[in-house]
Amino acid sequence: MARLLISADSHVMEPLDLWTTRLPPHLRAHGPRVEVRKDVPCLMVEDTVVRRFSTRSRTAREGWKTFTRGASDPEGRLRDLDADGVWGEVIYPNVAFFCCFHIRSAELQGATASLYNDWVAERFLDASERFAPVAVLPVVDVASAVAELRRAAARGFRAALLPAHVDFRPYNDAAYEPLWAAAEELGIPLTFHAGTGRTQTPAHGPGGAVINYVVTVGGPMETVAHLCGSGVLARFPGLRVVMVECGSGWLAWVLHAMDDAYREHHMFVEPKLELLPSEYFRRQGAVTFQHDPVGLANIGFTGDRCLMWGSDYPHPEGTWPHSQDVLARQLDGLPEDTIDRIVTQNAAALYRFRLPADAA
Amino acid sequence: MARLLISADSHVMEPLDLWTTRLPPHLRAHGPRVEVRKDVPCLMVEDTVVRRFSTRSRTAREGWKTFTRGASDPEGRLRDLDADGVWGEVIYPNVAFFCCFHIRSAELQGATASLYNDWVAERFLDASERFAPVAVLPVVDVASAVAELRRAAARGFRAALLPAHVDFRPYNDAAYEPLWAAAEELGIPLTFHAGTGRTQTPAHGPGGAVINYVVTVGGPMETVAHLCGSGVLARFPGLRVVMVECGSGWLAWVLHAMDDAYREHHMFVEPKLELLPSEYFRRQGAVTFQHDPVGLANIGFTGDRCLMWGSDYPHPEGTWPHSQDVLARQLDGLPEDTIDRIVTQNAAALYRFRLPADAA
Repeated sequence: MARLLISADSHVMEPLDLWTTRLPPHLRAHGPRVEVRKDVPCLMVEDTVVRRFSTRSRTAREGWKTFTRGASDPEGRLRDLDADGVWGEVIYPNVAFFCCFHIRSAELQGATASLYNDWVAERFLDASERFAPVAVLPVVDVASAVAELRRAAARGFRAALLPAHVDFRPYNDAAYEPLWAAAEELGIPLTFHAGTGRTQTPAHGPGGAVINYVVTVGGPMETVAHLCGSGVLARFPGLRVVMVECGSGWLAWVLHAMDDAYREHHMFVEPKLELLPSEYFRRQGAVTFQHDPVGLANIGFTGDRCLMWGSDYPHPEGTWPHSQDVLARQLDGLPEDTIDRIVTQNAAALYRFRLPADAA
Repeated sequence: MARLLISADSHVMEPLDLWTTRLPPHLRAHGPRVEVRKDVPCLMVEDTVVRRFSTRSRTAREGWKTFTRGASDPEGRLRDLDADGVWGEVIYPNVAFFCCFHIRSAELQGATASLYNDWVAERFLDASERFAPVAVLPVVDVASAVAELRRAAARGFRAALLPAHVDFRPYNDAAYEPLWAAAEELGIPLTFHAGTGRTQTPAHGPGGAVINYVVTVGGPMETVAHLCGSGVLARFPGLRVVMVECGSGWLAWVLHAMDDAYREHHMFVEPKLELLPSEYFRRQGAVTFQHDPVGLANIGFTGDRCLMWGSDYPHPEGTWPHSQDVLARQLDGLPEDTIDRIVTQNAAALYRFRLPADAA
């Protein structure tokens, strides 16, 4: 039986000239753009190469356009979703995803994020209630992030994106309090996508692809520890946070390790919390996975309310157009209500999707 | 029924003046030592504070001497082991643990490691076959590490210690080949103890204790990915590697994630391997844990041959003197042969303990 799937992790493909044509003139040379460096086309922002289009990647060989048409066209996208048996999607950027959080200038980051948010709102948010695009927040300046969050909420966005890591000002810093407060007040979940805020390729040489995957996909472990351990979730009980495209197989261990640290190193623990760190995450947090048998085997530790499936459409490593089959195999044997939460209800409630009546 | 336990993770306490009295005179001012900085006693090496004795720590309040006498005295230690129902121990340093891998000078690191190895050999290795102290390898200069490994093996050491991370020359670097080859040839397992090679306190401020625990204890995930993904374990099939005091709850996910990366990002994978990355770890790797229900629940993914228990004696957060009880509760319900492997046989075989005849 086909299920009413919601992908809690999908992407769009922005026009590559979005920023070079629409940023204020004095910022254009520094915003996201493609430049050829040593014969290799590179995605750049400011003076940083954020992505080299390796000749080994399918994108480089066949061009961004090999992404199915739905990557940037809402009608094509709805047809693709229907073909995949996916009803709704939480939509992340692609170019903005790679670029935005590398920007050091608050002005440039604010303008880059706003342009993306305007484009994705017009293109996808307005096109169908089946799309829940996520607004990018310019976090170099927290006041700007709060202002953009308010603007996004007023425009109809139901989720917002922060980098998984901000090494120059980690998430246990008091400077973020206004942002947590605003997200709680507006009822907008804050999402932290794996691979943002740090290089995705810290390792070079032999085994790099394997090492970088483990380090990058597992990066949000640290984010979870910041949000739970520092009391952010305790102080803002209405705040909801989601770690995206990070898998779920590490979550049981992180929940256990946080509590272990909290109890065993109590003499160093500050602040003291009313609940254990893990309990805040189970109450207010979630992770998205695509294919993670380890995470599914550990629902006894994590519960099933903090797990959400995502297709990663239209990325080539995603499950499209076989999501229904992949999920049926992966979820086989789990209780029906657990499956329903993981593939539909958790995301529907968190991102305020209005499911079609026949789903009741 | 009491079991014949082997702790695969214990520590000694070196004399604090070991290096200030015995290093060559021109190195003494730079070797491991305690200096008072801003009224706080600090463990220092070169110009780096590696440990501030926080007034909140039990060690600072009550002094290093509150460690039970067995921390530095072999007879007291054997009595403590008997009281705890532990038959044998793999023994790591304490001061050298914190200091040695922060040293940047190859000469100083070599001398610091050799002094520790000489001290622990004389004090513990010679005292009882129930002790398997681990020789510290000075890795700044790989040739020195190889020489010290050979010296240690000749002296009777059955294991050697490397830092979990070497950020200036990661473990996928070809420079390590002579070290891997020597360890394989000598049949000496290489161990990587969590919390070595990087600061243990990357996070500051609220939640620091919880964040740093997750980051530090989970650090060896990256080490596993380096050793498996880069083909080190494939090229040296006789090499055995152990991640120490890192828990085991993340292992199932890391094994899955490495294989996922290897398969899904195959166009970027270099070198190609005959087996999947996870298969090398199951064949040649192990982790030690103290209390990790998540890891035990995931034996279906990891197998039980790469898990070893450790008491962390004499650290205050260890299980001494209740190891038998703690283990009985923790392992309750697992198959008898699995328990036997985890608490006795895996470590006995790897570290060549000659178990007493009545254990057969």
